[in-house]
Amino acid sequence: MNIAIIGLGKMGGNMARRLARGGAKVFGFDLSDQTRAQLAAEEPNFTGFDSVATLVANLPQPRVVWMMLPAGEISEATLAELKTLLVPGDLIVDGANANYKDSQRHGAELAALGLRFVDAGVSGGVWGLANGYTIMFGGEREAAAQVEPFVRLLAPAPDRGWLHCGPAGAGHYTKMVHNGIEYGMMQAFAEGFAMLKAKEEFGLDIAQISELWRHGSVIRSWLLDLIAGTLSEDAELKDLQAYVPDSGEGRWTVVESIELGVPTPVIAQALYARFASRGNDDFAMKLLSMMRNAFGGHAVAKH
Amino acid sequence: MNIAIIGLGKMGGNMARRLARGGAKVFGFDLSDQTRAQLAAEEPNFTGFDSVATLVANLPQPRVVWMMLPAGEISEATLAELKTLLVPGDLIVDGANANYKDSQRHGAELAALGLRFVDAGVSGGVWGLANGYTIMFGGEREAAAQVEPFVRLLAPAPDRGWLHCGPAGAGHYTKMVHNGIEYGMMQAFAEGFAMLKAKEEFGLDIAQISELWRHGSVIRSWLLDLIAGTLSEDAELKDLQAYVPDSGEGRWTVVESIELGVPTPVIAQALYARFASRGNDDFAMKLLSMMRNAFGGHAVAKH
Repeated sequence: MNIAIIGLGKMGGNMARRLARGGAKVFGFDLSDQTRAQLAAEEPNFTGFDSVATLVANLPQPRVVWMMLPAGEISEATLAELKTLLVPGDLIVDGANANYKDSQRHGAELAALGLRFVDAGVSGGVWGLANGYTIMFGGEREAAAQVEPFVRLLAPAPDRGWLHCGPAGAGHYTKMVHNGIEYGMMQAFAEGFAMLKAKEEFGLDIAQISELWRHGSVIRSWLLDLIAGTLSEDAELKDLQAYVPDSGEGRWTVVESIELGVPTPVIAQALYARFASRGNDDFAMKLLSMMRNAFGGHAVAKH
Repeated sequence: MNIAIIGLGKMGGNMARRLARGGAKVFGFDLSDQTRAQLAAEEPNFTGFDSVATLVANLPQPRVVWMMLPAGEISEATLAELKTLLVPGDLIVDGANANYKDSQRHGAELAALGLRFVDAGVSGGVWGLANGYTIMFGGEREAAAQVEPFVRLLAPAPDRGWLHCGPAGAGHYTKMVHNGIEYGMMQAFAEGFAMLKAKEEFGLDIAQISELWRHGSVIRSWLLDLIAGTLSEDAELKDLQAYVPDSGEGRWTVVESIELGVPTPVIAQALYARFASRGNDDFAMKLLSMMRNAFGGHAVAKH
């Protein structure tokens, strides 16, 4: 049970911990000396390496190398390096939130070199260390069998919370759709709580209402648990700006829905709401204001 | 602990059972003789009456009369009858999915007669008998205190899953927003699963994916539990028409969001998707088809 984890950030670091605590020997690489040293101090089953090449040289064959890196340039560069270091029978897992089309391409490129590939969508956030990670992965049958023992350690339990979804790309596709659903659910909660807050005549206690809904209601969910936990401490969310980033999966979901011709109005609206929160519709709103003034002489707000 | 339940359908019948099993003496009215007889046979603490007047005559004062009737005409008629039968200090609870503005009006009308009023939003569906009902209610402090012992029996546990939200109307307002959130969450799941199903190249098993997501994922929720339970038996949903009714709360939520000026794009889109499922955009789609043909000569589909 030897496995390499490349990238020991919020996700990769805790996955390394969970694997090490489950009995796997974990070979870790991260650019940060401090991150590696801390993990080595915490986990007897963890060994840190200061380069991918050294790590690969020390990892017994057949190798399982699990990348937990930002999708895009960094992942591509590491994949390119791994191609020169690994030998047929070795396996690369891409655990990033990568676009499934990139994963389909990576699978084909690695197969041409005799290397195995698994694309793994990993969900669970900062709670994964304690509760386990939901893992949906794609790849050929041999690759799936090779990674399965590690997936069982990472999952909430050996027999649940993980699935071999289909060929290379199917894992990241399934994760993309999961995150698209997440966008819609989050926006539904956000809109509802905004309506409770805006109804001043009732003086509603939104922290108590969020807690109430956790017990027996139709909308009880882990997201609602998180909302209730936060609102019980700060119902005004006063430290937060009304500014919501996005990290790609929502965009990919909407683009894919267009390619498939499957309407996803809720997921699309949830994505657009985030864009608007960042001021990306400011010019459109200025233009609307201008037109109202131009045809109707309506007053405009100015800086 | 005496309480009347008027309307012993899917919701009211099981609420009567839960109250009776919790030790309350339940005085029940329903138009159906069979429904009353069945409850009386099942529950020693239940007594059925064949008219509202007989029920009220037998119920000790101060009375608590909980209506579980369809909102609208039937509820209005029963309220009018109760006004003539009850005396000051008695309490009417409206447990229907009523519009909160009607509940505000009812509260004021009953207060003028010295009658107390509570508007209660009740969530839990057909699972409420076993798991308890989430109850969010509005009303004056004395009315809330009078109904609280019964609410504790109905709730998932005496100390959780219920809340006195504010004055009359606040219960149904909170329930309305709950249901609005439910519309958005349901549509988000529906869109995501449609995208999994449409991606034929991956041959995804949507029943397995729904079960997978229940364990450790960000979107785990009671709605997902229901989806997984159904898909495990019938992943094609072949007996169902793609036709979705709505029962008012979604419409009220969107109308209220307009009155408040709070944007709710996801809840509105979820509502519009249901309208479209019933063919209510067929004429619009015919018109689009006509225009494409008129300006571009594009082919049209005809009956």
